[in-house]
Amino acid sequence: MGTLGRVNLILLDREDFVSRDRVRLTGRRLEHVRDVCRARVGENQQVGEIGGMLGSGRVLCLDGQALELEVRLDQAPPEPLAVTLAVALPRPPALRMVLQQATALGVKRILLFHSRRVEKSYWQSHGLEGASIETQLRLGLEQARDTILPEVGTRPRFRPFAEDEVPRLAREGAVLVADPGAAPLATPADLGRPWTLIVGPEGGLVPFELELLMASGARRLGLGERVLRVETAVVALLARLAL
Amino acid sequence: MGTLGRVNLILLDREDFVSRDRVRLTGRRLEHVRDVCRARVGENQQVGEIGGMLGSGRVLCLDGQALELEVRLDQAPPEPLAVTLAVALPRPPALRMVLQQATALGVKRILLFHSRRVEKSYWQSHGLEGASIETQLRLGLEQARDTILPEVGTRPRFRPFAEDEVPRLAREGAVLVADPGAAPLATPADLGRPWTLIVGPEGGLVPFELELLMASGARRLGLGERVLRVETAVVALLARLAL
Repeated sequence: MGTLGRVNLILLDREDFVSRDRVRLTGRRLEHVRDVCRARVGENQQVGEIGGMLGSGRVLCLDGQALELEVRLDQAPPEPLAVTLAVALPRPPALRMVLQQATALGVKRILLFHSRRVEKSYWQSHGLEGASIETQLRLGLEQARDTILPEVGTRPRFRPFAEDEVPRLAREGAVLVADPGAAPLATPADLGRPWTLIVGPEGGLVPFELELLMASGARRLGLGERVLRVETAVVALLARLAL
Repeated sequence: MGTLGRVNLILLDREDFVSRDRVRLTGRRLEHVRDVCRARVGENQQVGEIGGMLGSGRVLCLDGQALELEVRLDQAPPEPLAVTLAVALPRPPALRMVLQQATALGVKRILLFHSRRVEKSYWQSHGLEGASIETQLRLGLEQARDTILPEVGTRPRFRPFAEDEVPRLAREGAVLVADPGAAPLATPADLGRPWTLIVGPEGGLVPFELELLMASGARRLGLGERVLRVETAVVALLARLAL
C-alpha cells in the first residue's frame, strides 16, 4: 500500500468494454494499476461495473497506452443501507468527506439541504457541480468495493424540504434529526425501511427549523454532550444506527 | 460559522492565568476570538482548562496585543470513553484524522503500533513528533468541548505489543480486533471496562499477526463486506461499540 493510496476496486463504465468480457482503460486507471498496484500481465485485479456486478479482471496487456483486462463479473455488490441521508450543506472540504464516507458506508440517497446556519456561499461551491460530486461518490465506491452510485439531490430552500418532503419520508419510515441539544443517543427499536437521518449544520439547526421538522414527523436524536464535526457525526450516526 | 472553522472551546493552559480567575491570551487564540468569533468586550466565550474544568470566560479586553478573560470554571468535562484504541500506524494524513476524531469521541488512550503492512517510512513522519500529536489532540478537544488530553503511545515493534501488552489489556476487559475478513459486526454483550479496540492497517493484519493477537486473548470483530478507510473504520467502530 503506497502513500498514494491504492484503490480496492477498479470501476468500469459501459464504454470501457471493447467486447463482452474485455475492457480497455487509459488515463487515471491505467496509471493506477501500472504505477500504484504495479500489476503485471496475467495478474488479477478486483473490478466492478458501475451499476452492475463485481468480479475480477486478468491483465492481458499493460503499457504506456492502455490497460486491457479480461473481466469476469459474477458477484453481487454489497447490500445498500436502507437510509436516506439528509445533510445541511457543509463547507466544501466537509462535503467531500461526507459524500465519500457515506458512499463507502453504503448510503444510496443523499440530500443536501439549506438551513439558516449554512453559509449562502457554499451553494456556489464547485464541489456541488455534478462532476465533483461524482468524483467523491466514485472514490467511496472504490474504497468500499461497491458499484451502485448514490443519488444526490440538492434542496436549496428549507421550507419545501421540511414541509413537503419530510412528511413523505416520515410515511416510509422513521425520520431522525441529529440534534446536539437532545438527550444522548438511544437507538429507536424499529426504524422502518427505508428510514431517514437528518444532520444539521455544525452550528445546529435554529429552533424554528427543528420545530418545522418535528411537526413533519421527525424525531430528535442526541449524540451526547460532545460536539462533533459534521463528517464525524455522519459516520458515527450511520454506524450506530445502520451497521 | 466562518469557513475558517470556529472552535467550540478555548483551551487554557496553566501559564495563561495571570490571577486565579483571569487569563491573558496572545497569538492563535487571540486572533481566533477577535477575527473568527468577532467577540466584543463583555461577551462570553466557552473555555476549559487543560486537564481541568469547563466554564465561561467574559471578555475584559481585546486588542492587537492580547485577549483578557475573566473565567469561571464550574462544569465537569464530558465523560471519557473507557476504551484503549490501538491503531496500526496509518499514513500521515490519516494519522491526523484518527488522533483528532478519536479525541473528539472521548478516547483517552491511543496506541500506535507497527505491523507488517505499515510502511516503515511512516515511523519517520513529522506527524509523530510530540508537538504535532498534541496539535491534533487539542483540535479534537476544542471540537468536542473536552479538556482531558489523551495519552498517546507508540509501539514500533509488533511482537512485544502483541505478546506482552495485549494479554495485560485482555485481563482488564475485552480486546477486539477489527478484521475485514471476520463475520459482520456483532456487538459483544459485555465489553468490560476498560476495553480495547485494535484496528489494523488498511491492507489488513497478516495472518501471523492476527494469530498472535488471538493467542493473547483478542477476539475478531468484522465490519461487513465493505472495506473502510482506517479513519472511517475507527469512528464507525467506536460509535457502534462505545457511544
